Amino acid sequence: MFLSARKLAVSAFALGLVATPALAQDATTIARAETVRDRAMASNIALDYITQLTTRFGPRPAGSRSEQDAAAWAADYMRAHGFQNVRIEEFPLVGWERGEESASVVGDHPQRLVVAALGHSPGTNGVIEAEIVRFTSLEALNAAPAGSLAGKIAFVDAGQMVRMQDGAGYGPLTRIRGAGPSAAASKGALAFIMRSAGSDDHRMPHTGTTRYVDGRVPVPGFALSAPDADQLSGLVARGQPVRVRLSSTAHTYETHSQNVIGDIVGRTRPNEVIVLGSHMDSWDLGTGAIDDGAGGAITLGAAKAIADSGRRPARTIRVVLYGSEEVAQPTDTGNGGGAYLRGIGNAVDNHIIAGESDFGADRVYALGLPPGAQGSDFARAAAEVLYPIGVLTSQEPEMHGGADVGPLAGAGVPVFGLAQDGTRYFDLHHTADDTLNKIDPSQMSQNVAAWAGLVWLIADSDVDFRAMRATEGAGAH
Amino acid sequence: MFLSARKLAVSAFALGLVATPALAQDATTIARAETVRDRAMASNIALDYITQLTTRFGPRPAGSRSEQDAAAWAADYMRAHGFQNVRIEEFPLVGWERGEESASVVGDHPQRLVVAALGHSPGTNGVIEAEIVRFTSLEALNAAPAGSLAGKIAFVDAGQMVRMQDGAGYGPLTRIRGAGPSAAASKGALAFIMRSAGSDDHRMPHTGTTRYVDGRVPVPGFALSAPDADQLSGLVARGQPVRVRLSSTAHTYETHSQNVIGDIVGRTRPNEVIVLGSHMDSWDLGTGAIDDGAGGAITLGAAKAIADSGRRPARTIRVVLYGSEEVAQPTDTGNGGGAYLRGIGNAVDNHIIAGESDFGADRVYALGLPPGAQGSDFARAAAEVLYPIGVLTSQEPEMHGGADVGPLAGAGVPVFGLAQDGTRYFDLHHTADDTLNKIDPSQMSQNVAAWAGLVWLIADSDVDFRAMRATEGAGAH
Repeated sequence: MFLSARKLAVSAFALGLVATPALAQDATTIARAETVRDRAMASNIALDYITQLTTRFGPRPAGSRSEQDAAAWAADYMRAHGFQNVRIEEFPLVGWERGEESASVVGDHPQRLVVAALGHSPGTNGVIEAEIVRFTSLEALNAAPAGSLAGKIAFVDAGQMVRMQDGAGYGPLTRIRGAGPSAAASKGALAFIMRSAGSDDHRMPHTGTTRYVDGRVPVPGFALSAPDADQLSGLVARGQPVRVRLSSTAHTYETHSQNVIGDIVGRTRPNEVIVLGSHMDSWDLGTGAIDDGAGGAITLGAAKAIADSGRRPARTIRVVLYGSEEVAQPTDTGNGGGAYLRGIGNAVDNHIIAGESDFGADRVYALGLPPGAQGSDFARAAAEVLYPIGVLTSQEPEMHGGADVGPLAGAGVPVFGLAQDGTRYFDLHHTADDTLNKIDPSQMSQNVAAWAGLVWLIADSDVDFRAMRATEGAGAH
Repeated sequence: MFLSARKLAVSAFALGLVATPALAQDATTIARAETVRDRAMASNIALDYITQLTTRFGPRPAGSRSEQDAAAWAADYMRAHGFQNVRIEEFPLVGWERGEESASVVGDHPQRLVVAALGHSPGTNGVIEAEIVRFTSLEALNAAPAGSLAGKIAFVDAGQMVRMQDGAGYGPLTRIRGAGPSAAASKGALAFIMRSAGSDDHRMPHTGTTRYVDGRVPVPGFALSAPDADQLSGLVARGQPVRVRLSSTAHTYETHSQNVIGDIVGRTRPNEVIVLGSHMDSWDLGTGAIDDGAGGAITLGAAKAIADSGRRPARTIRVVLYGSEEVAQPTDTGNGGGAYLRGIGNAVDNHIIAGESDFGADRVYALGLPPGAQGSDFARAAAEVLYPIGVLTSQEPEMHGGADVGPLAGAGVPVFGLAQDGTRYFDLHHTADDTLNKIDPSQMSQNVAAWAGLVWLIADSDVDFRAMRATEGAGAH
């Protein structure tokens, strides 16, 4: 039956007569996916989008006028490129503005330090000047005696992040960034400073959000660039007290953000939705090229390549440019992924799969599929399409997908991941150096091709990842 | 005669009896130079010096308190390391302070730009906001009709500097930096901005001094980082007028700088002086590690390795840590090299040779000797000592030496050069990114070794570069 069904599908497709979707592993479906992949590789829409987005709007902090203007423009861009049902979905959030900030060493070795306040950090309400106490880990800070940092500034220098393809060094440093200010405050400190969560050696502090306790960040938090962390640690190593002066006018404010949503409506199963996307907001220091204008460029480019293929796929492909990924607190509702999930209501059950692109624009090297899909006919079809452009199919299931599709994943929507080379991602991430010239157009094109080829297989077949997940362990589909 | 003189010298040295200096090409002199070279390679004094200098004093703008404090410390450092006649030679100069500065695009595409005022640029006296007019060369700016830039800001984007081992791309860009503000002013412009004279792609503007006309820089001048120049050129390319807002509180002030001078006094010909050195001032944005704490570290380290060799050389080796190299105008007296020349008076005739290290700390690859020394026995001896550590002897004579020894060269003192790999120098030069972590200790050690080996050959021989120059063309010495 399996063989005859396949034959039927092939011949039906050859005639172009039936509305029934094919199996992903059909030779015709694969051949079409390969064609779409190669068209996508040659398309320049991703480069056009990222160039316009970063040049016109510069930084796009969540809730800012710039993010709002960029969203309106992106909606027009989608419409102009044939997307349907283009809409903007607003949601409220607590925004954060950096204002002005400075840091310096005072005393015998006076010199400026290059710092960036951490997202949602409060301002210093004037100047904080105090002796620093250095720790080499969050654990060491947590182990400091109660009250031992009264009137001081906690400084955590956990050493330089190591570059890795999968960015594995980032996680431990985000724990320091998230918990540092509250840990410092719990010991009586006036402020918290840390070596940036970044792998570069440049004078570039890496911002990023820190975590609320009881609805706020308890003391101001700052990230030092790597050379400035070296400098401060070098001064501490001289054995004399080191005093630092900090000032920041950072503050929160009530605002709104928005998702931009557009569809390539499916030919025969329009209610079955494949959600692609990325976040449109960026940090305020750079122009958000790699984080994450690139993800919008890649997913828009892939969807557009499919739309332009001469055959509209069976299922609907939706691109969501999420608002407010960067600054939202884990517990609040001010993030685009959550707003999207709330907006779709019961339609979540029609969401076949979701994937986000949020790791720069360097080449894709691995495909992660939902649990149960490993070793399936679909996985083999995907490998046939993706292997020629350097993408292996991982045996490890993709569970969470990322911050934007996390809410969908939590609501039961299967997610996939196209893992990208992140070796240089954390050199640039959350810094002023995240700019258009860091995009490698040829690697970004490979991304677009990988997304287009893979999504075609899902969109023009009846592959059912929920069913595969349900039968996981019972053998390949 | 030649051979017997050489033999005599060798045997006399072997007995350690005579005060007469050897020929540089004596086997014993060469062997001692090799020993000094290898000791220097293993020494850590250069790394200690550069670490302390940059950590304790941070940026050291000419005429600043920081430069003055660093000079006092360096004098103590020299004394503690056995230098004699250590002295500080003060001289007046017009200093320049950056103050606070900002730049942004205003209008439909509002965003901050990362800029640095050019040295000696006046402040904006409030805010300058005007439309920019873009040029792709200084020549194009010079060709603009008279008055055509009235009320506007001139922007020269001559493209990105190409990385080269010898830094050849820098010269043309310094002409833009030097002449840009006056060229802009001559057409009526309110201000001048340019793509930085730098080869990196980071968000790092490269400052540097611009030139006076009638005793002042006529309009404020700024350098944009490479991504910001891209951004501004990208906005101009959209075809709409682009307005930029500039502010700067930069200003000049009367102050003084100083040279720090210390000697390893010669054993038998103490009045014959070999001058090594580099400038101690730095730009204000970084901590002046590669420009030019490194040069002091290298030349001090080389002199110290010679002093510690167990045999004091015949001639005096002098290390000069010059004040105020960066900000001086070509026509004024506020630079350390000129002050040193004035200070020595007629003793200039006893100056055998001078050399400066001012191109970072990456490896030395070529030796340039004064005119007439090419192909000489001295050159062959130098090659014997330097070739094993990767230094070729150039056939091109060294004429000027650099900014610090330029005044000596102008007064007839022969100069040499040890050319360094400058491939990454202009990534960092004059930026906030010029920090200690950019020093590669192993390459800096090779520098110290090259300087020590070469200087030994000059200091413990009677090589006479003036005589070689006088007989240039009359055959090798």
